[in-house]
Amino acid sequence: MTEKEFFKVTTLGTVLELTRTFPCVSEEVLPIDQCVGRILSQDIVSKINLPGFTRATMDGYAVQARSTFGASESMPALFTIVGAVEMGQVPTVSVKDGEAVRIATGGMLPNGADSVVMVEHTQAIDEYTLEVFKSVAPLQHVIEIGEDIRKGEKILSKGSRIRPQEMGVLAALGQARIPVFRQPVIAIISSGDEVVPIGEAPSLSQVRDVNAYTLTGLVRASGGIPVYLGIAKDNFEELNGLCRRALAEADMVLISGGSSVGSRDFTVEVVQALPDAEILVHGVSISPGKPTILARSEQKAIWGLPGQVASAMVVFHVMVRPMLERIGGVSEDRLAGAQEVAAVLSRNLASVQGREDYVRVKLVHQGNQVYAEPILGKSGLIHTMVKADGLIRIDMNSEGLEKGTPVKVLLF
Amino acid sequence: MTEKEFFKVTTLGTVLELTRTFPCVSEEVLPIDQCVGRILSQDIVSKINLPGFTRATMDGYAVQARSTFGASESMPALFTIVGAVEMGQVPTVSVKDGEAVRIATGGMLPNGADSVVMVEHTQAIDEYTLEVFKSVAPLQHVIEIGEDIRKGEKILSKGSRIRPQEMGVLAALGQARIPVFRQPVIAIISSGDEVVPIGEAPSLSQVRDVNAYTLTGLVRASGGIPVYLGIAKDNFEELNGLCRRALAEADMVLISGGSSVGSRDFTVEVVQALPDAEILVHGVSISPGKPTILARSEQKAIWGLPGQVASAMVVFHVMVRPMLERIGGVSEDRLAGAQEVAAVLSRNLASVQGREDYVRVKLVHQGNQVYAEPILGKSGLIHTMVKADGLIRIDMNSEGLEKGTPVKVLLF
Repeated sequence: MTEKEFFKVTTLGTVLELTRTFPCVSEEVLPIDQCVGRILSQDIVSKINLPGFTRATMDGYAVQARSTFGASESMPALFTIVGAVEMGQVPTVSVKDGEAVRIATGGMLPNGADSVVMVEHTQAIDEYTLEVFKSVAPLQHVIEIGEDIRKGEKILSKGSRIRPQEMGVLAALGQARIPVFRQPVIAIISSGDEVVPIGEAPSLSQVRDVNAYTLTGLVRASGGIPVYLGIAKDNFEELNGLCRRALAEADMVLISGGSSVGSRDFTVEVVQALPDAEILVHGVSISPGKPTILARSEQKAIWGLPGQVASAMVVFHVMVRPMLERIGGVSEDRLAGAQEVAAVLSRNLASVQGREDYVRVKLVHQGNQVYAEPILGKSGLIHTMVKADGLIRIDMNSEGLEKGTPVKVLLF
Repeated sequence: MTEKEFFKVTTLGTVLELTRTFPCVSEEVLPIDQCVGRILSQDIVSKINLPGFTRATMDGYAVQARSTFGASESMPALFTIVGAVEMGQVPTVSVKDGEAVRIATGGMLPNGADSVVMVEHTQAIDEYTLEVFKSVAPLQHVIEIGEDIRKGEKILSKGSRIRPQEMGVLAALGQARIPVFRQPVIAIISSGDEVVPIGEAPSLSQVRDVNAYTLTGLVRASGGIPVYLGIAKDNFEELNGLCRRALAEADMVLISGGSSVGSRDFTVEVVQALPDAEILVHGVSISPGKPTILARSEQKAIWGLPGQVASAMVVFHVMVRPMLERIGGVSEDRLAGAQEVAAVLSRNLASVQGREDYVRVKLVHQGNQVYAEPILGKSGLIHTMVKADGLIRIDMNSEGLEKGTPVKVLLF
């Protein structure tokens, strides 16, 4: 253990800038039903018009709108029913002035018709005679060819996430196989002489490997594929070996080290010995999360995360997750904001100037208001994480936040 | 096609009540690393104290707090360094008044010590002599045995979702295998003479099966396992056969029918013929989504969803998803609110009294304010769903909402 720390801490903004200098993963092509939550690796341009035919959006009768003009409850317009549209069939009848053809929602408009009268505004007198009680405008209750999506139109963008509705659009365009970015593979290494696998009973003075499982969950919830490589004792060869294996197998490496100065120095030493290695960050001006390391080896990022699991979670949410999404192909404009909710701070919170503070909060719904209630407690306590719904940020230049301040909560 | 509709519409509240009358899925036991996002099927009670030993939370020296009382920069207290704590080892030294033992974060406190002096507040004069510049209180910079989690304490509840931090807690407790609810299996059936598989080129008047893929995505994003059974033509035997297969394979069935009155009647007819069938709901007082059917056959729910895909999405979000979560074991107090963000309406919105209206909105961030901007357009248009971030609800008794009204946006 060294007696003094010589941190040249980096600001969070600079760290996030540095994460932009790493390359994206490659792409793959997947069957559409496996694509929800994945990131498009190409723009999607429609090769067709949607709908491909002019279509009814209501049950009723296809007519020429002008034949209905002036129709009312007291003065219904009279129509001759000349046929019906079968679903999925091209109509064989056409519609002239004063004629009506039965049609259901989704049916193809017959030639000559320009609108649909809703069935609720009609009464059939007999098989061939219809009274219409309300006029319609041309194109009312129909969707025209290409009105939804036009041939040649860019409909989805590279770097956007495929939600259920995007799956619907891709299905509508007939895209059975979708170009997406690979899910980044993230290697997870635990280190520390005191850490034992969770299946083992720790002897007095040992602890179970909590961080690996927390990180596994975080990686999976962020769209990555976690690969847990196990625990390295504080031994150069052992940690170096796992790091080399991680670089061979993964797109990014997370080392969850001890929180002592000694174990941090040790992690730096091991990382520096990796091929083509460069330490980019050694200490970040945020709390918790100061003892964070970011390095590069052969174009891949290696993070040294704080040993305190609650601190590691904060670092993951504010730095690692945006980077994981970025190397996973998510476009810049889609990284931020999605997981934030607005709330009002429930009590005063002090802070230290010169660093960004992240405070765990619980969301409390009271009437129409959502309160962010800070969860206090020593940083090493695991149970405080379980009580929390998210994080609020206190700015570097702030001495704290007053009760009642509107805050944004980054959801866990 | 019938000329009139005789809907006895049900309110959304009643529909949601009805969904509570269906049973939960069974449980299974999974390796912890597969559990993120899953629902606990049992309470988790700690069998151990955490930490299992009194532990340092800072790098420094373990001491008796009273030996530091009165220490200051100008009047440092003098200590004798009597040893060091190795990580993962039970200390062999003990601490008496005026003695200090080196310790790193996470190290086990030696006998006799009750606190840790941070290394930043000390200076080692030589190998055996230490100056301390600041006093500490008893228990400062330590976590005591059981301070985090006490043996016998219920730490996680049945019906709660396992987030990354819950994985950490479960790892800390040594739970390598976790009791969780099975993921509900949801069968998806499309119906309609006009619907063709997405791999086929639809002829004029036909459409691709958009709904099945949208629903596949929605089910997956809600924690279910979608099973797509294909398209049934509007033919009793065909739809009945797929429904029977669905009931045999799945926990819940979604039939995405046409939106015409005829195809809705047809779906009801088929569902009524299923074993032990009961139609619970035929029409709901919401818009879009009125033509929704809920039935029960042998304790399983069968939903008839609107054929318009945008309407089907609304019905899924407000009715099907809460039910899917509920039969998947999510406890009542954890169903609501999680996916909502607060925003301010960007323009006036009219509504019809007597039904709940759901309006698709886009979230627009402007300065510190988030606006919900209604996306207008005909209900059959697919591209409006892609532009939307979520839904806002207009109450049954409201005639509309004014620009500037605070709203909650149910995120897609």
